[in-house]
Amino acid sequence: MRETEAIRRLRTFVAEREWAQFHSPENLAKSIAIEAGELLECFQWSGDDADDEHVREELADVLTYCLLLADKIGADPIQLVLDKLELTTQKYPVEKSRGRSEKYDRL
Amino acid sequence: MRETEAIRRLRTFVAEREWAQFHSPENLAKSIAIEAGELLECFQWSGDDADDEHVREELADVLTYCLLLADKIGADPIQLVLDKLELTTQKYPVEKSRGRSEKYDRL
Amino acid sequence: MRETEAIRRLRTFVAEREWAQFHSPENLAKSIAIEAGELLECFQWSGDDADDEHVREELADVLTYCLLLADKIGADPIQLVLDKLELTTQKYPVEKSRGRSEKYDRL
Amino acid sequence: MRETEAIRRLRTFVAEREWAQFHSPENLAKSIAIEAGELLECFQWSGDDADDEHVREELADVLTYCLLLADKIGADPIQLVLDKLELTTQKYPVEKSRGRSEKYDRL
Repeated sequence: MRETEAIRRLRTFVAEREWAQFHSPENLAKSIAIEAGELLECFQWSGDDADDEHVREELADVLTYCLLLADKIGADPIQLVLDKLELTTQKYPVEKSRGRSEKYDRL
Repeated sequence: MRETEAIRRLRTFVAEREWAQFHSPENLAKSIAIEAGELLECFQWSGDDADDEHVREELADVLTYCLLLADKIGADPIQLVLDKLELTTQKYPVEKSRGRSEKYDRL
Repeated sequence: MRETEAIRRLRTFVAEREWAQFHSPENLAKSIAIEAGELLECFQWSGDDADDEHVREELADVLTYCLLLADKIGADPIQLVLDKLELTTQKYPVEKSRGRSEKYDRL
Repeated sequence: MRETEAIRRLRTFVAEREWAQFHSPENLAKSIAIEAGELLECFQWSGDDADDEHVREELADVLTYCLLLADKIGADPIQLVLDKLELTTQKYPVEKSRGRSEKYDRL
């Protein structure tokens, strides 16, 4: 499983630098928000002309901290997504939500 | 590959609801930032007593939008992480960065 | 009123550069989130050793975009704060909320 | 000065509830990022149809935490904006930046 391999390498990277001490769940959640801001900056003044390479790098940073947080709390990141998708599927029935961007409680 | 399966299911979920029209890269980047804020809210007043189930749900939301954005821009999310890790490994040599949280340009 | 003077100067700054075209409410909201991320970065790995000058600069950026957005939507920023404080005062009665950081719906 | 009056009332509100213990600079910075995400949510799927009342409320929340953080670090929020505007004015000369949204280092 490739995401397991990625997490294994992230663990080694962190361990070699003795950075686990900085990676509390709270600090990782802050880091995700910080990197999400940097990703958003690619689209600050326009939705259309973001630099593709820059978007990839910033998205990689958000994803990296997400994997580190998942690992920290003992969660399987792909399973998290699948479990949440199941919940969301129930909250947004196809018939009611087709073509609409409203939140489920306004459908 | 499990993340490919997750992306396939996300695609189906989006297609059934005709939501691709809302999923511009910009809107997905906004969504990542919004969900990152909700994740951070779990740790707003304390780093220690976050509700584990709540953290998992909010992390799942961030991850979901990350996978959707990766898919939108034709990127492999795990490969993004691995490529960035290679860059970061070069920027933070073990000897210089051990036990330190400073940015690479201040090491 | 000093905040009116600040807003007047911000308007001149923006007008001279013909930047009003970029300052849609949406773009200003994105900018607030981006700058909030940069402010948060001052506290990424520790709550205690943030550089005071850096915090001031990043807080100034968030505030600046807040004033620009308030001006854009025709709102008085100080009045917004006062009106919201009135609502919050009702939602958090002194007796129920003293010394507690829970949200009003959990008090 | 109206912003001083607002800060005075915020102080009273916080003191009555004994909430100063939660208002470390770090927690206030987190709160600003969280509320900035909620403000951004008003524009999640479209830049055009945000609910005006909702935008005002969320902007008020961001501003409130900005004033609380400024107060916490002993800064005058309006002066912060004016000082930063002076710096930005130097970084973005009118002739070079007119009608352009690029960052100063790319002008």
